[in-house]
Amino acid sequence: MKVGRYVRMVATPGAGAALADGLLAVAEGMRAAAGCELYVVNRTPDEEDVVWVTEVWADEASSDAALNQDLGEAGLGAVLPLLAAPPEFIELTPIGGPGLS
Amino acid sequence: MKVGRYVRMVATPGAGAALADGLLAVAEGMRAAAGCELYVVNRTPDEEDVVWVTEVWADEASSDAALNQDLGEAGLGAVLPLLAAPPEFIELTPIGGPGLS
Repeated sequence: MKVGRYVRMVATPGAGAALADGLLAVAEGMRAAAGCELYVVNRTPDEEDVVWVTEVWADEASSDAALNQDLGEAGLGAVLPLLAAPPEFIELTPIGGPGLS
Repeated sequence: MKVGRYVRMVATPGAGAALADGLLAVAEGMRAAAGCELYVVNRTPDEEDVVWVTEVWADEASSDAALNQDLGEAGLGAVLPLLAAPPEFIELTPIGGPGLS
Protein backbone atom coordinates (compact mmCIF):
# COMPACT_ATOMS: atom_id res chain seq x y z
CA MET A 1 0.00 0.00 0.00
CA LYS A 2 1.30 3.41 -0.94
CA VAL A 3 2.00 6.01 1.74
CA GLY A 4 1.77 9.76 1.27
CA ARG A 5 1.81 13.00 3.18
CA TYR A 6 1.60 16.73 2.84
CA VAL A 7 4.31 18.50 4.85
CA ARG A 8 3.74 22.17 5.72
CA MET A 9 6.82 24.21 6.58
CA VAL A 10 6.87 27.85 7.67
CA ALA A 11 10.08 29.81 7.17
CA THR A 12 11.31 32.61 9.35
CA PRO A 13 10.05 35.95 7.92
CA GLY A 14 11.50 36.58 4.47
CA ALA A 15 13.15 33.16 4.20
CA GLY A 16 10.45 31.46 2.10
CA ALA A 17 12.51 31.48 -1.10
CA ALA A 18 15.61 30.14 0.68
CA LEU A 19 13.51 27.39 2.27
CA ALA A 20 12.07 26.46 -1.13
CA ASP A 21 15.57 26.33 -2.65
CA GLY A 22 16.83 24.11 0.17
CA LEU A 23 13.89 21.75 -0.23
CA LEU A 24 14.45 21.55 -3.99
CA ALA A 25 17.98 20.34 -3.21
CA VAL A 26 16.55 17.74 -0.81
CA ALA A 27 14.05 16.74 -3.52
CA GLU A 28 16.86 16.16 -6.04
CA GLY A 29 18.50 13.80 -3.57
CA MET A 30 15.21 11.91 -3.24
CA ARG A 31 15.39 10.89 -6.92
CA ALA A 32 17.82 8.19 -5.77
CA ALA A 33 15.65 7.05 -2.85
CA ALA A 34 14.09 3.62 -3.30
CA GLY A 35 10.31 3.79 -3.56
CA CYS A 36 10.09 7.58 -3.89
CA GLU A 37 7.22 8.17 -6.33
CA LEU A 38 6.52 11.85 -5.64
CA TYR A 39 8.42 14.53 -3.75
CA VAL A 40 7.07 17.81 -5.06
CA VAL A 41 8.04 21.17 -3.55
CA ASN A 42 5.33 23.85 -3.68
CA ARG A 43 5.26 27.52 -2.84
CA THR A 44 1.93 29.15 -1.99
CA PRO A 45 0.53 32.19 -3.80
CA ASP A 46 -1.13 33.36 -0.56
CA GLU A 47 1.66 32.86 2.00
CA GLU A 48 5.18 33.94 1.02
CA ASP A 49 6.93 32.06 3.82
CA VAL A 50 5.05 28.76 3.59
CA VAL A 51 6.33 25.78 1.60
CA TRP A 52 4.43 22.50 1.18
CA VAL A 53 5.98 19.19 0.11
CA THR A 54 3.79 16.49 -1.46
CA GLU A 55 5.22 13.01 -0.86
CA VAL A 56 4.16 9.61 -2.22
CA TRP A 57 6.10 6.45 -1.39
CA ALA A 58 5.68 2.95 -2.79
CA ASP A 59 5.16 1.53 0.69
CA GLU A 60 5.63 2.16 4.41
CA ALA A 61 9.15 0.71 4.41
CA SER A 62 10.50 3.08 1.75
CA SER A 63 8.86 6.05 3.47
CA ASP A 64 10.37 5.08 6.82
CA ALA A 65 13.82 4.51 5.32
CA ALA A 66 13.88 7.98 3.77
CA LEU A 67 12.55 9.70 6.88
CA ASN A 68 15.06 7.94 9.11
CA GLN A 69 18.12 8.62 7.01
CA ASP A 70 20.82 10.91 8.32
CA LEU A 71 19.61 14.53 8.21
CA GLY A 72 22.83 15.70 6.62
CA GLU A 73 22.67 12.99 4.00
CA ALA A 74 19.15 14.13 3.07
CA GLY A 75 20.25 17.78 2.90
CA LEU A 76 17.83 18.72 5.65
CA GLY A 77 20.59 20.13 7.82
CA ALA A 78 20.63 23.26 5.66
CA VAL A 79 16.86 23.59 5.78
CA LEU A 80 16.08 23.21 9.48
CA PRO A 81 17.60 26.56 10.59
CA LEU A 82 15.23 28.34 8.19
CA LEU A 83 12.11 27.00 9.90
CA ALA A 84 10.05 29.20 12.21
CA ALA A 85 8.30 26.17 13.70
CA PRO A 86 8.40 22.37 13.47
CA PRO A 87 6.91 20.98 10.23
CA GLU A 88 3.28 19.88 10.26
CA PHE A 89 2.19 16.63 8.60
CA ILE A 90 -1.06 15.47 7.02
CA GLU A 91 -0.80 11.69 6.61
CA LEU A 92 -2.38 10.20 3.49
CA THR A 93 -3.16 6.90 1.82
CA PRO A 94 -3.01 7.55 -1.95
CA ILE A 95 -5.51 5.29 -3.72
CA GLY A 96 -5.47 6.29 -7.40
CA GLY A 97 -5.73 8.84 -10.17
CA PRO A 98 -3.62 10.34 -12.98
CA GLY A 99 0.02 10.75 -12.02
CA LEU A 100 0.02 7.87 -9.55
CA SER A 101 1.95 4.82 -10.76
CA MET B 1 3.83 28.19 -14.62
CA LYS B 2 2.28 25.09 -13.11
CA VAL B 3 -0.74 25.39 -10.83
CA GLY B 4 -1.60 23.00 -8.01
CA ARG B 5 -3.91 22.59 -5.08
CA TYR B 6 -4.87 20.30 -2.25
CA VAL B 7 -8.63 19.85 -1.98
CA ARG B 8 -10.02 18.62 1.35
CA MET B 9 -13.46 17.05 1.30
CA VAL B 10 -15.43 15.79 4.29
CA ALA B 11 -18.11 13.19 3.69
CA THR B 12 -21.29 12.80 5.68
CA PRO B 13 -20.69 10.29 8.51
CA GLY B 14 -19.87 6.84 7.14
CA ALA B 15 -19.71 8.00 3.51
CA GLY B 16 -15.92 8.34 3.26
CA ALA B 17 -15.48 5.21 1.13
CA ALA B 18 -18.31 6.22 -1.22
CA LEU B 19 -16.80 9.70 -1.58
CA ALA B 20 -13.40 8.19 -2.38
CA ASP B 21 -14.97 5.89 -5.00
CA GLY B 22 -16.79 8.80 -6.61
CA LEU B 23 -13.61 10.87 -6.73
CA LEU B 24 -11.69 7.97 -8.28
CA ALA B 25 -14.28 8.02 -11.09
CA VAL B 26 -13.78 11.78 -11.48
CA ALA B 27 -10.01 11.19 -11.52
CA GLU B 28 -10.32 8.63 -14.33
CA GLY B 29 -12.15 11.25 -16.39
CA MET B 30 -9.32 13.72 -15.75
CA ARG B 31 -6.89 11.48 -17.65
CA ALA B 32 -8.37 13.00 -20.80
CA ALA B 33 -8.18 16.60 -19.52
CA ALA B 34 -5.58 18.74 -21.30
CA GLY B 35 -2.77 19.79 -18.97
CA CYS B 36 -3.73 17.47 -16.10
CA GLU B 37 -0.42 16.30 -14.63
CA LEU B 38 -1.61 14.99 -11.28
CA TYR B 39 -5.04 14.23 -9.86
CA VAL B 40 -4.43 11.87 -6.96
CA VAL B 41 -7.21 10.75 -4.62
CA ASN B 42 -6.11 10.10 -1.03
CA ARG B 43 -7.84 8.69 2.01
CA THR B 44 -6.52 9.56 5.47
CA PRO B 45 -5.49 6.99 8.08
CA ASP B 46 -6.63 9.34 10.85
CA GLU B 47 -10.00 10.55 9.54
CA GLU B 48 -12.33 7.98 7.99
CA ASP B 49 -14.62 10.51 6.31
CA VAL B 50 -11.98 12.87 4.90
CA VAL B 51 -10.67 12.62 1.33
CA TRP B 52 -7.91 14.82 -0.10
CA VAL B 53 -7.22 15.34 -3.81
CA THR B 54 -3.76 16.45 -4.96
CA GLU B 55 -3.95 18.36 -8.26
CA VAL B 56 -1.19 19.64 -10.55
CA TRP B 57 -1.98 21.37 -13.85
CA ALA B 58 0.40 22.44 -16.61
CA ASP B 59 -0.83 26.03 -16.37
CA GLU B 60 -3.62 28.27 -15.10
CA ALA B 61 -5.63 27.88 -18.31
CA SER B 62 -5.86 24.09 -18.11
CA SER B 63 -6.74 24.27 -14.41
CA ASP B 64 -9.51 26.79 -15.09
CA ALA B 65 -10.87 24.79 -18.01
CA ALA B 66 -11.18 21.65 -15.89
CA LEU B 67 -12.71 23.45 -12.92
CA ASN B 68 -15.24 25.25 -15.11
CA GLN B 69 -16.43 22.23 -17.04
CA ASP B 70 -19.95 20.98 -16.58
CA LEU B 71 -20.29 19.25 -13.16
CA GLY B 72 -22.08 16.28 -14.70
CA GLU B 73 -19.41 15.91 -17.35
CA ALA B 74 -16.73 15.80 -14.65
CA GLY B 75 -18.71 13.23 -12.63
CA LEU B 76 -18.93 15.60 -9.69
CA GLY B 77 -22.70 15.47 -9.69
CA ALA B 78 -22.54 12.06 -7.98
CA VAL B 79 -20.02 13.29 -5.43
CA LEU B 80 -21.53 16.52 -4.19
CA PRO B 81 -24.47 14.93 -2.27
CA LEU B 82 -21.93 12.97 -0.20
CA LEU B 83 -20.24 16.10 1.16
CA ALA B 84 -20.91 17.29 4.69
CA ALA B 85 -19.48 20.75 3.90
CA PRO B 86 -18.09 22.67 0.93
CA PRO B 87 -14.60 21.57 -0.15
CA GLU B 88 -11.60 23.49 1.21
CA PHE B 89 -8.70 24.45 -1.04
CA ILE B 90 -5.00 25.06 -0.41
CA GLU B 91 -3.62 26.79 -3.51
CA LEU B 92 -0.08 25.85 -4.57
CA THR B 93 2.64 26.75 -7.04
CA PRO B 94 4.55 23.50 -7.72
CA ILE B 95 8.20 24.32 -8.41
CA GLY B 96 10.03 21.00 -8.74
CA GLY B 97 10.99 17.58 -7.47
CA PRO B 98 10.63 13.90 -8.41
CA GLY B 99 7.28 13.11 -10.01
CA LEU B 100 6.81 16.60 -11.45
CA SER B 101 7.21 16.72 -15.23
